[in-house]
Amino acid sequence: MAKQTPRTLSGFMELLPAPQRQMERIMEILRETYSLYGFTPLDTPVVEASEVLLAKGGGETEKQIYRFQKGDADLSLRFDLTVPLAKYVALHYNDLTFPFRRFQIGKVYRGERAQRGRFREFYQADIDVIGDGKLSILNEAEIPAIIYRTFSALGLKRFLIRVNNRKILNGFYAMLNLTERAQDVMRTVDKLDKIGLEKVEAILTRDLGLSREQAREILSFISINGENAAVLSQLEEYRGRNPLFDQGLEELKTVVKHLGAFGVPAESFAVDLTIARGLDYYTGTVYETVLLDHPEIGSVCSGGRYDNLAEYYTDKQLPGVGISIGLTRLFYVLGEQGMLNPELPTAPADVLILPMTEDLSAAIAFATELRDNGVRVQLHCEEKKFKQKISYADKLGIPYVVFLGEDEISAGVAACKDMQTGEQTKLDPKATIYRIKAGLDARNRGFVIKG
Amino acid sequence: MAKQTPRTLSGFMELLPAPQRQMERIMEILRETYSLYGFTPLDTPVVEASEVLLAKGGGETEKQIYRFQKGDADLSLRFDLTVPLAKYVALHYNDLTFPFRRFQIGKVYRGERAQRGRFREFYQADIDVIGDGKLSILNEAEIPAIIYRTFSALGLKRFLIRVNNRKILNGFYAMLNLTERAQDVMRTVDKLDKIGLEKVEAILTRDLGLSREQAREILSFISINGENAAVLSQLEEYRGRNPLFDQGLEELKTVVKHLGAFGVPAESFAVDLTIARGLDYYTGTVYETVLLDHPEIGSVCSGGRYDNLAEYYTDKQLPGVGISIGLTRLFYVLGEQGMLNPELPTAPADVLILPMTEDLSAAIAFATELRDNGVRVQLHCEEKKFKQKISYADKLGIPYVVFLGEDEISAGVAACKDMQTGEQTKLDPKATIYRIKAGLDARNRGFVIKG
Repeated sequence: MAKQTPRTLSGFMELLPAPQRQMERIMEILRETYSLYGFTPLDTPVVEASEVLLAKGGGETEKQIYRFQKGDADLSLRFDLTVPLAKYVALHYNDLTFPFRRFQIGKVYRGERAQRGRFREFYQADIDVIGDGKLSILNEAEIPAIIYRTFSALGLKRFLIRVNNRKILNGFYAMLNLTERAQDVMRTVDKLDKIGLEKVEAILTRDLGLSREQAREILSFISINGENAAVLSQLEEYRGRNPLFDQGLEELKTVVKHLGAFGVPAESFAVDLTIARGLDYYTGTVYETVLLDHPEIGSVCSGGRYDNLAEYYTDKQLPGVGISIGLTRLFYVLGEQGMLNPELPTAPADVLILPMTEDLSAAIAFATELRDNGVRVQLHCEEKKFKQKISYADKLGIPYVVFLGEDEISAGVAACKDMQTGEQTKLDPKATIYRIKAGLDARNRGFVIKG
Repeated sequence: MAKQTPRTLSGFMELLPAPQRQMERIMEILRETYSLYGFTPLDTPVVEASEVLLAKGGGETEKQIYRFQKGDADLSLRFDLTVPLAKYVALHYNDLTFPFRRFQIGKVYRGERAQRGRFREFYQADIDVIGDGKLSILNEAEIPAIIYRTFSALGLKRFLIRVNNRKILNGFYAMLNLTERAQDVMRTVDKLDKIGLEKVEAILTRDLGLSREQAREILSFISINGENAAVLSQLEEYRGRNPLFDQGLEELKTVVKHLGAFGVPAESFAVDLTIARGLDYYTGTVYETVLLDHPEIGSVCSGGRYDNLAEYYTDKQLPGVGISIGLTRLFYVLGEQGMLNPELPTAPADVLILPMTEDLSAAIAFATELRDNGVRVQLHCEEKKFKQKISYADKLGIPYVVFLGEDEISAGVAACKDMQTGEQTKLDPKATIYRIKAGLDARNRGFVIKG
């Protein structure tokens, strides 16, 4: 028979079993951590009606979208989890209780030009809190705690949550009568890290036609940095010149004030006035998270406060705050950087049982007992040589091999080999299970990411 | 602004938060149970190249498939998890260790005519063991144990795992010189439950042209039933007439023999000679699982042994055995039948904290402490009346509400109300956490399905 060459589409991540286990572990930690903050899991279709998904229309998004006909229906694959959330909240408004807190970890699709580290199918892990009409600033203050706990639970240590407030930015540009030009200015300021202060000043005055005075004010503003208290006190000097600015400053102070009670160490958090995050959508606190040893990756968890989640579907005012992790890309980068902890078990089983007798009953019964105790067991009953079976455990990294021969069965013990140390015990079933579980606990104690 | 009416496509399940929690719980139990048997989680793309996905070609599948162009690429959404597994194993053959045991819970797509209880996007939960060249019968014998543990862990009690062996069927029809007609005969026999013995006999003789003798042999064969031992001894009477039959009988006896050691009670298992499961694919043991109180649903977990997983992609002989649960349909049916346990918590949080003071620090710090202890907490700091906040907890089914006023804070206690009993305690933080955790343990003890 002619064979079809098997292949996986470029830009679509497909992991081998061991890295897949690491990915599953990360997802599990995200689910657990998000749950601790009262977010409920949500799952929406991957396919939506195009007119619903593209209600906002325009932009880069539309070009990248996977859109197709099926019968009479014009369908599209979702390109993010925010638009489906907006649809969900508008559609199920009467069945939901607000504030509505949901997390969703799901695949999204963008037909980008395929290149190394860019994905066309990728997981996003989003959380959002949606209010009905109003939403307390406390929700914005809580987000750094969620980011901190999430990355800490993954094992990351050297990361920084950078926070700004769009009201401060917009208020500041209003002070300078630059409201109309604010977008261009922010786009330029955003390049600060790359091109430096002088070039930013040159673009502001020469290309954007700002006065030298305006440019200086901007540069002095975005240069404000230091510890949180110092930044806030420098911002205090602008108070009273614009009500929006003053409101933003109050909000920022609330966010900073509660960090300690939320368990976020000061060194993991920084006010950063250069962060803007998108130009129309966000209206309050905005967040970015960078890995201190890998700034080149950019932000690994971003988001912010917005005023109108579902304006394309409903007249209801639904403000919210949310953050998103580009999980597939993050996983890819962690792998590239060698940051995935190889010590954590990735084997499909904790124990491989090798029956050494014709009658398999004793081996099967012991496998059942181990499973009743929550131990992951594989019985190896294939026609293979003993050595091949040991090598099977070795290749897969299965930590324990149990041998059950006539002698063991009649003595009521199990021979159990620790594949890492080579140590072999002959203990009764209960003691063997106890030993295995203690060993597994120790092995699973590490973090999925090497700090 | 003109609004786009929000809607979700027909045939695409989108759950409200409470049922979604139940669905997540079911998936978690499946993941845990499958893992106990040494299956590793796998995740493959939803989108594949059409020529890869449709390598087998033809049939109903191709009509139902979601297929589309993106640029030059001819793409399709996967319609099951078996074809992607075949591709995966053929593609990554050199990186895998055999036997290869994987589970996958993922969405698949079929553009069926939309009707109540039929889905176009639905989850399948599959496990498969793939051998390289050979695969021990023990893998077939283990499957009933996996089905039994899975459904028991979900809370189901009254279900029956029905098992047959295709070698027995094919051997039997060879005895009657009906190998060529076996497919038609089996299709007729399959209607036994619906139309009864007499009509089956009529079709066999009148429509299919079988002799009265052949029809009688068939009817007598498929009428074999009773306890496992009785069925096996009746089958023994056919031994020696066809080698394939004899081999199938040996296999069936091995499967039955180990049920006890695998922890499967006799009453949950039955040999059923009327089961065939598809006509070409399966070659050995086949499985169906029925809910005894809802036979109308049909099989909720089916599968079997096959000889050639990836024949469209590789010359390698890759035999396997697998089962599949149509998870979305099962969940839908369980909901329809009122079988989802409403006692299990579906709230997004375990505790709602209502700060009663201007300064939120104490409330936030207690929330952080609860979260450090694995308790899911939501702070409610919105501008709402006290009564509205209590009603919020009530609507969402949040089991505990904690009040922190001046008195509590200065006394170093937390007022905590059990929303179900109305009982209120004022205890120090540690004791409050202890009480909450004990209460949650009790609440979470139930099964997701009402037996």
